[in-house]
Amino acid sequence: VLGRGGASEAVSARAWLDGMLAFEAGLARAQARVGVISTEEADAVVNACAGEFDVSEIAAGAGEIGNPAGPLVKALKERTDAPVHRGATSQDVVDTAAMLVTRNALAVIGEDLRGAADEAARLARAHRDTPIMGRTLLQPAVPTTFGLKAAGWMTGLDEARAGLAGLRLSVQFGGAAGTLAGNPPEVVGLLAEELGLEPPVLPWHTLRGRIGELAGALGVAAGAVGKPARDVVLLSQGEVAEVREAVGGGSTAMAHKHNPVAAIAALGCAQQAPGLVATLLTAMVQEHERAAGAWHSEWRPLSVLLITVGSAASWLRASLTGLEVDAARMAVPGDTGHAAELVDRALEARA
Amino acid sequence: VLGRGGASEAVSARAWLDGMLAFEAGLARAQARVGVISTEEADAVVNACAGEFDVSEIAAGAGEIGNPAGPLVKALKERTDAPVHRGATSQDVVDTAAMLVTRNALAVIGEDLRGAADEAARLARAHRDTPIMGRTLLQPAVPTTFGLKAAGWMTGLDEARAGLAGLRLSVQFGGAAGTLAGNPPEVVGLLAEELGLEPPVLPWHTLRGRIGELAGALGVAAGAVGKPARDVVLLSQGEVAEVREAVGGGSTAMAHKHNPVAAIAALGCAQQAPGLVATLLTAMVQEHERAAGAWHSEWRPLSVLLITVGSAASWLRASLTGLEVDAARMAVPGDTGHAAELVDRALEARA
Amino acid sequence: VLGRGGASEAVSARAWLDGMLAFEAGLARAQARVGVISTEEADAVVNACAGEFDVSEIAAGAGEIGNPAGPLVKALKERTDAPVHRGATSQDVVDTAAMLVTRNALAVIGEDLRGAADEAARLARAHRDTPIMGRTLLQPAVPTTFGLKAAGWMTGLDEARAGLAGLRLSVQFGGAAGTLAGNPPEVVGLLAEELGLEPPVLPWHTLRGRIGELAGALGVAAGAVGKPARDVVLLSQGEVAEVREAVGGGSTAMAHKHNPVAAIAALGCAQQAPGLVATLLTAMVQEHERAAGAWHSEWRPLSVLLITVGSAASWLRASLTGLEVDAARMAVPGDTGHAAELVDRALEARA
Amino acid sequence: VLGRGGASEAVSARAWLDGMLAFEAGLARAQARVGVISTEEADAVVNACAGEFDVSEIAAGAGEIGNPAGPLVKALKERTDAPVHRGATSQDVVDTAAMLVTRNALAVIGEDLRGAADEAARLARAHRDTPIMGRTLLQPAVPTTFGLKAAGWMTGLDEARAGLAGLRLSVQFGGAAGTLAGNPPEVVGLLAEELGLEPPVLPWHTLRGRIGELAGALGVAAGAVGKPARDVVLLSQGEVAEVREAVGGGSTAMAHKHNPVAAIAALGCAQQAPGLVATLLTAMVQEHERAAGAWHSEWRPLSVLLITVGSAASWLRASLTGLEVDAARMAVPGDTGHAAELVDRALEARA
Repeated sequence: VLGRGGASEAVSARAWLDGMLAFEAGLARAQARVGVISTEEADAVVNACAGEFDVSEIAAGAGEIGNPAGPLVKALKERTDAPVHRGATSQDVVDTAAMLVTRNALAVIGEDLRGAADEAARLARAHRDTPIMGRTLLQPAVPTTFGLKAAGWMTGLDEARAGLAGLRLSVQFGGAAGTLAGNPPEVVGLLAEELGLEPPVLPWHTLRGRIGELAGALGVAAGAVGKPARDVVLLSQGEVAEVREAVGGGSTAMAHKHNPVAAIAALGCAQQAPGLVATLLTAMVQEHERAAGAWHSEWRPLSVLLITVGSAASWLRASLTGLEVDAARMAVPGDTGHAAELVDRALEARA
Repeated sequence: VLGRGGASEAVSARAWLDGMLAFEAGLARAQARVGVISTEEADAVVNACAGEFDVSEIAAGAGEIGNPAGPLVKALKERTDAPVHRGATSQDVVDTAAMLVTRNALAVIGEDLRGAADEAARLARAHRDTPIMGRTLLQPAVPTTFGLKAAGWMTGLDEARAGLAGLRLSVQFGGAAGTLAGNPPEVVGLLAEELGLEPPVLPWHTLRGRIGELAGALGVAAGAVGKPARDVVLLSQGEVAEVREAVGGGSTAMAHKHNPVAAIAALGCAQQAPGLVATLLTAMVQEHERAAGAWHSEWRPLSVLLITVGSAASWLRASLTGLEVDAARMAVPGDTGHAAELVDRALEARA
Repeated sequence: VLGRGGASEAVSARAWLDGMLAFEAGLARAQARVGVISTEEADAVVNACAGEFDVSEIAAGAGEIGNPAGPLVKALKERTDAPVHRGATSQDVVDTAAMLVTRNALAVIGEDLRGAADEAARLARAHRDTPIMGRTLLQPAVPTTFGLKAAGWMTGLDEARAGLAGLRLSVQFGGAAGTLAGNPPEVVGLLAEELGLEPPVLPWHTLRGRIGELAGALGVAAGAVGKPARDVVLLSQGEVAEVREAVGGGSTAMAHKHNPVAAIAALGCAQQAPGLVATLLTAMVQEHERAAGAWHSEWRPLSVLLITVGSAASWLRASLTGLEVDAARMAVPGDTGHAAELVDRALEARA
Repeated sequence: VLGRGGASEAVSARAWLDGMLAFEAGLARAQARVGVISTEEADAVVNACAGEFDVSEIAAGAGEIGNPAGPLVKALKERTDAPVHRGATSQDVVDTAAMLVTRNALAVIGEDLRGAADEAARLARAHRDTPIMGRTLLQPAVPTTFGLKAAGWMTGLDEARAGLAGLRLSVQFGGAAGTLAGNPPEVVGLLAEELGLEPPVLPWHTLRGRIGELAGALGVAAGAVGKPARDVVLLSQGEVAEVREAVGGGSTAMAHKHNPVAAIAALGCAQQAPGLVATLLTAMVQEHERAAGAWHSEWRPLSVLLITVGSAASWLRASLTGLEVDAARMAVPGDTGHAAELVDRALEARA
């Protein structure tokens, strides 16, 4: 229920391990390009990284040193004599893996947000002129159109997606104290190139703006998903019954019920986001060159935030897909103002 | 790193499933005791509950109906013709399972809090008169004793444990709309007896004070753990070096380092709690007889909160166990006031 | 809108100042009782504390030293030569003032929670047997009674009030490093007696369990208020129209509207609580003998939390007072189970 | 202590009132430009808006209708017969005022962030090559330079400022149900022009992405301020003593202390931000055309968030201004890697 869509898989323990291996392989390749290590050595490291690793073994080892990079490097060194992890520190590995994991998760989240917005756009177009009572403070106010309501959902989702698309996903590389000791500075740019991430101006071991921005944008996405989900739930009430989910389900106790399960699940997922955002923002206050605890407090909230926002987006998309609209029940007399023109404007702005 | 101690296991998917099965078996037994079903039927249900179930299959089914109780009841009904889940609703099952899971998790968390407090008590006793510079606003102020500092850790941990011990862990049983339709009211008390939980005055499907109180008490426990962890980290600084963890570890890049790994991990876990508490408190505003989303938003934060507080407590206990105290480095001249008497008072209050 | 009820006044800048003056006067009296200072000196301090002080002047001075106790002590010393603030530290003054302010605010909050619960009890009694559709996941489920719904509101509010009533409100007194240097330990108990607060086992400058517990209990109270407020808003929807606020209001644009203004304002206030609770829990991790920032981060959230929960309770009480119930519209055929008996049980448990 | 800098004044009750008056005057002017009302009528409205209004009277009236726009419009209508607030709804006024207030607050916050970053840049330049022990997990690691540390502070602050500068500050205008009924759509763009805000594609009464983005960016700014503040506090410890605030202060109890008051106050302010961000993100889930409670729950958190982030920035600027650096105490032998080059790169990226 809480892990629908592809984000859960994108942030699995396996995915984190793959991200760490990608860092070590990419670093070796980048170091070979500037001559810090030989091409043969790089190949040996890359080969070692391509092997099989036991996720639970690495996790167990992480408990001893306090992070998962240590046991992974140890496992790699058992497989090759070539220089692994040269001039790198644990946080270089884990932060870069976090960015790779995030990139993959954002891709599926973005796709579900886009899909949900497409459905909303379809509804906006189809119901551009369908009158519906506008409701303010949950009281009937004056008429609007269902198309304008759906256009609002679409706009909110598109804006949230744009926010996610604009994030900085940067490689992390600085070594023990962030001075790039033991590596020429060019390695950073080359490593970024290898991994398809941005090169940062400075190592960001304790400059967590990137994480804070990511958290904020995911929090906004959760809100943008929660809004239409709440509207669908309210419009599905027995006394209102203006929409009906195609995917809704029954209950263990009452066969006659048709619950808007997808919208409810979307809400349940979206509402978990703000607290996680707060945790990640709190964690921005990190000490000196690498933090004592605040960094560790980021790992799980980041993963869970990606999962819950991804799940929310996936559920909302399911809710809006095939949403049955009862235009006859919606019908309300009166002036809908410029609702239809606003729909057109929003659809144009999207195109 | 983030799931040390027994709480992770206590809130695993398997543990949740076991809790749900305990509910169904307990309900059948309670219903047999008042004659709603026969003893033979109850035995059949209890037997069915004792069988093997595939956690991942139940989870997959949960995605369709929106909660895990539906597929479980379905699986039970495939195994027995006896009346399963009579007059119950999904939330009866899941909430009761949550309370059973919580009870088990609180037992291990309480044990680790007690263990950490015991270590703090040992330090308080041993260093009742060991002078150390009192530090306020991270500046040297006037002397105190290390024993008083440790007595403060102990007191905070004990108070947090008392808060957890005082929580209401109640069975949930109300049926579809919380009216106990189809069951005599006595079933609630008998079910509570069967499961070792409290009987509530009313079904609490949307009266979430219990969850809010649990969240608050876990948040306080996290803070009580974080305080000594922060102190250990600060006292372990190279420039201070007044304590040294017995369990501390090295780094991937610098063999000479002795990091206070356990205290750092405790901090990293503890700092994840407040955001989760906020999510659970936000979820208290639940609609009518059963909520549309807010209830769903409780499940993961509750599990993660139990895990992260449990992990924090376990790490702190490890940090304080065998903590090496350098009384010579601590030594500072001057009046320690009534520090030693305060230590005595705190130890007496504990006994 | 956001500061209804008496809590705002109870936590005003003037109230904080009064609390600080009460500490200084109480300390002098307590010290005279054990002979640390003479009765004449104590009288002089008490007299000085009874004078007029300019709140904004103290606030301005606070900016220089970093807390308001410094400028207040300075102002007192300008008025008397008797020993003011002997052996005390800034945090002794401010924390004790916080407890006095909290006590007063909790009194008015408790009174409004009780008043709201009384109204809910009245509705429960009057509508013990009034059938209404039970709604789960915002879908019609099976019948219940409006009395049971109201009994749930009552129970949640009463439990929240009990949580607030059980809080520890303790005097703070420890001096510069919490060792009671310069004062006999008995002063703590006497000072507590003077102020009507509890004496703590240890000074709690950096043991913030009390603040965390207070935050948690206020968060629970906010949730307990938000739940009935949400129900009233939903039941007031045009399509449902089963209740109508006596105090509801119109809109600037639409004269025909009757908005459930009080319930909406209650919700708006209640929803501000969880984030503030998280801030206060985060602040529990305080360094050494007195913290560098975390303590400062408590002041405003504590005041605002008291205000917003108090305002929520006051608005809910207004919403429920005279709430018009349309039993005819509620009417639904079918079995209401044991709803009426549950109402009786809840009312008995209250008495 | 908690309201340093200009943000407090920028979000005062008076400032909110001025923002609301600016909306009404701007609307009249915009409506005159398209001929909805006459130029004479617009002048009358503008004149009425320029009069004196009693903030506390408007606030009192707000309690009755549930928002401050109602009593303000009433007060204006008592002063002029010209059409005030035509086709507008309360939320148009309050949201637009919020954007104007935010714009002014962001200007002063941005200025203090810039000032703090300038000081950090100065330190980075001056100490480009000053060796200092790099500290990871609060343990000595390998050398870096103090200039690189300061360059990190600068970069974080600059990035946070860029995030604030990129926010969308849009006018709100949609009327009762957001359909622009009774006004030609061009009014929105003209009103935006009058007020120097952006015109939105759609009315955003319940599309709160703008508020969520603002909250996120302010949360990031708080983190960017908290990081250097924490470093200054740690570097100021008695055992480290590598920096000393020029503005630091003493204590009520210990004359010898030199507390880094400004950095501590900055931390105390910054740590209040994440919880407020969570509240604003939670509030994004707003019902239908205008929300029942969630909108109301934004007002105070938004004001307080602007105040606390502004105060944090102002305190940090004070902390860094004239910060005394003890290069001799910092001195540590060993290789500082490419620290100096990284400083150059960061300074260049800034220019």
